[in-house]
Amino acid sequence: MRGLYLVTDRELCGNKSLTDVVIQAVNGGARYVQLREKNLSTRDFVAEARAIKKLLKPFEVPLIINDRVDVALAAGADGVHIGQEDMPYETARRLMGPKAIIGLSVETWEDVEESRKLDVSYIGVSPVFATPTKTDTKKPWGLDGLEKIKSVSRHPLVAIGGINETNAAAVVQAGGDCLAVVSAICAAENPEAAARKLSGIIETVIRERK
Amino acid sequence: MRGLYLVTDRELCGNKSLTDVVIQAVNGGARYVQLREKNLSTRDFVAEARAIKKLLKPFEVPLIINDRVDVALAAGADGVHIGQEDMPYETARRLMGPKAIIGLSVETWEDVEESRKLDVSYIGVSPVFATPTKTDTKKPWGLDGLEKIKSVSRHPLVAIGGINETNAAAVVQAGGDCLAVVSAICAAENPEAAARKLSGIIETVIRERK
Repeated sequence: MRGLYLVTDRELCGNKSLTDVVIQAVNGGARYVQLREKNLSTRDFVAEARAIKKLLKPFEVPLIINDRVDVALAAGADGVHIGQEDMPYETARRLMGPKAIIGLSVETWEDVEESRKLDVSYIGVSPVFATPTKTDTKKPWGLDGLEKIKSVSRHPLVAIGGINETNAAAVVQAGGDCLAVVSAICAAENPEAAARKLSGIIETVIRERK
Repeated sequence: MRGLYLVTDRELCGNKSLTDVVIQAVNGGARYVQLREKNLSTRDFVAEARAIKKLLKPFEVPLIINDRVDVALAAGADGVHIGQEDMPYETARRLMGPKAIIGLSVETWEDVEESRKLDVSYIGVSPVFATPTKTDTKKPWGLDGLEKIKSVSRHPLVAIGGINETNAAAVVQAGGDCLAVVSAICAAENPEAAARKLSGIIETVIRERK
């Protein structure tokens, strides 16, 4: 896995529809889309996930659902992203099957060590920087922390938390294979342009890194 | 399906543990247990469901999970109860399999007619009476409404909402095959005695009804 990874936040989309932000992000180069919904009913979440899945299919961009394995299964999504308070990894893998993308957030060094034993698809390094969009997260890892995780981890790293075009290059340099962004795209005036800029930075720096 | 059906509410349990209330209810004759959790993390909900499933197994009392198909699958629960805002019935059936208990709440006459086409395990008639434990429900069906649903429905009826030992007999008379209770057991000083009394009423009146 590598590239730009959009995590949605319907509130941050403001006047723009969520669908529109997703399509613009993908047109701008986002390679993964994660739907994160904390306040929708199950019925509405399933309906939304199905609509977004249909929309992403022609782009071959995988749809990942935050936390809710039931919604992922109902919508035929490609994977789930789970945090330390979500379903245990082994259970999610059993329910989602061997081909599903399953990402796991690590918030402490203990989580990092634990994740080495697991056959996860990627690790979400969360948060890299302090961020206003998630309030339940632990102390930021910083670039040092990201680098340290990269040196021990056998999984791709998806960096999340406070990433924007001013720090994206540094995050990739420090070991981020994917950069996950929320407000940098959802709250952007022009999500497509924002996605294009971020995607470009990631591609350039990953090539240099190799 | 027939008999007493416990729906849990951890806040109403007060000083008693949820586990303790469940075990007492079952000892008192409850034949179905539905776990309803609106504020737990997925991880905690799964852990709780697994613990309760283990506890119910020797009693051969089915465990039903409110709304969350993922939690039901993760815990090996026997079924799910879905409302009109939860996962669509057909999707829940596909994910849970043909043997699962799947109950569906009906809140309007349209829901009742729609439910006749579905292969649901039971219909939740919700609420029969006004109740303080659920605030998102529609106008109460009353005994008249329950009777009317009974006359057209091909599914067992689980009556819920404001049921207690003073009105239980009338609810069974009107067509309730199961009586689902929340506060009448969770908030009871002696949940086992409360369950025994309610179970006794249901058994007696169902026998008379036939």
